[in-house]
Amino acid sequence: MSLVVVGSIALDSIETPKGKIENSLGGSAIYASLAASYFGPAYIVGVVGEDFPEEAIHLLKEHNINLEGLETKTGKTFRWKGVYNNWNQAETLKTELNVFADFSPSLPDSYRKCNSLLLANIHPELQGKVLKQMKSYRWVACDTMNYWINLCPEELTKVIHQVDILFINEDEIRQYTGIDNIFKAARMILKSKVQVVVVKRGEYGSVAILPDDLFFSPAYPLEEIFDPTGAGDSFAGAFMSYLASQSSLDKNTIHSAIRYGTVLAAKCVSDFGVRGLIHQDFSDLQKMVDQLESWT
Amino acid sequence: MSLVVVGSIALDSIETPKGKIENSLGGSAIYASLAASYFGPAYIVGVVGEDFPEEAIHLLKEHNINLEGLETKTGKTFRWKGVYNNWNQAETLKTELNVFADFSPSLPDSYRKCNSLLLANIHPELQGKVLKQMKSYRWVACDTMNYWINLCPEELTKVIHQVDILFINEDEIRQYTGIDNIFKAARMILKSKVQVVVVKRGEYGSVAILPDDLFFSPAYPLEEIFDPTGAGDSFAGAFMSYLASQSSLDKNTIHSAIRYGTVLAAKCVSDFGVRGLIHQDFSDLQKMVDQLESWT
Repeated sequence: MSLVVVGSIALDSIETPKGKIENSLGGSAIYASLAASYFGPAYIVGVVGEDFPEEAIHLLKEHNINLEGLETKTGKTFRWKGVYNNWNQAETLKTELNVFADFSPSLPDSYRKCNSLLLANIHPELQGKVLKQMKSYRWVACDTMNYWINLCPEELTKVIHQVDILFINEDEIRQYTGIDNIFKAARMILKSKVQVVVVKRGEYGSVAILPDDLFFSPAYPLEEIFDPTGAGDSFAGAFMSYLASQSSLDKNTIHSAIRYGTVLAAKCVSDFGVRGLIHQDFSDLQKMVDQLESWT
Repeated sequence: MSLVVVGSIALDSIETPKGKIENSLGGSAIYASLAASYFGPAYIVGVVGEDFPEEAIHLLKEHNINLEGLETKTGKTFRWKGVYNNWNQAETLKTELNVFADFSPSLPDSYRKCNSLLLANIHPELQGKVLKQMKSYRWVACDTMNYWINLCPEELTKVIHQVDILFINEDEIRQYTGIDNIFKAARMILKSKVQVVVVKRGEYGSVAILPDDLFFSPAYPLEEIFDPTGAGDSFAGAFMSYLASQSSLDKNTIHSAIRYGTVLAAKCVSDFGVRGLIHQDFSDLQKMVDQLESWT
């Protein structure tokens, strides 16, 4: 009933066609943990600098996020600056690794007994280090991005071969497998330990590909989006946290996990930074999930 | 229980990354009527030249397509030559209008009593002429393309204002309305007589947008496609022919119509020209529809 999340923790400066924010709470572990918090406690693993704002800590605590695995190191928090000239792809203007440069994650004892693990988007080497420290778990998932597929495909493959669920977008699965058709590409990945490949398709939603089944979900329809940052992390966080509360990886569980992921991703992109993910009413999220089901 | 289909009838020469065909039976009315034929009789309206092959006539008859409205004129059949350098957009290499140049459709009496009408992709002026000749009908739908939106938007609007269902793809609805968000764009169109806007999204499927409801369907997942020509026409033909067999435009009817449309579009692209649409076993199509339902 609890999910460990490892990933980046950042202060982001983001510009989209709808406006901009500066030094705003971000990073894959933050988006994933906030989205996860609606389904159960999230146990975050990450590193921040001395400049990490007190209000951010307060916000994470309000969301029942366990911060025992959050290290504070001398120096500055990881910073990312990006601009969206189109909605599909951010252009990175600046990356300052800061305290993240020599981060080596160490899991508190209380974390090692959690039943699920999300290796959010971060260097595969760090994903592997966290995975090794977990005692026992029911399900482990990983997310990744084009950057790591280019930089260290072998290390990424080592991680992927140990997970049950892989989150990956359309371009990335093509890049990773060298196969253009996403269904064929997923079938190649399903030859490993992976039981479910969740292919994210942006505004077109997602498809979960299993050895003998498929599940498609549209994206939750929105008339406006403000900031796409963190949509995939929010999806994965909500998916895995819902899954951590369930006892089997059956068809209905996956359908619900996908729908919760879809709704939290929609909430995420409906405002700048993490604003869309905080202080949400669960009954509103449930209503969106029910709508999504009625629309398919 | 019967559908009138007006549109182009052509001999197509098509090249895709998977191969090519020459002087093959095609045109929007042909694709739509063949797809329609699995759900009830289709009554085709169109024109061909003296070179129209006898085997094509035979094939249409085998599919119970009523040919009373098919005129044969002195001259050659409309010809189209296109190449797909990518799967999403054909590049037209040659168009020979031939007998199509001065076609003025005239409906046989038996057609005027059909309960549904599909104005498949063709000049909006011809769509309007056919619509005027129908005596009474339950449902009328139109399909169109970027070419007519550019060339004669006012004539197209006149037609759209008289139909119940509009088939249009994502780029086209943006082009036609000037609105980037497809849900907002559809709502603008729904202020007219139109009750359902079906937005076609290629490999991502389609979404039916109604004043107070939505229905999303993925495309039927295929590991290979051979020729995208006619996919939208097949979708519209199957959708409308299924609808012609139903008594109300309720939620379940629309869901089924979309799924049948989706499956016939998949059959269409699974082979060159119309080959994927002919001599299919209905139980196989039904199985695909059932799968599609189980995957959402």
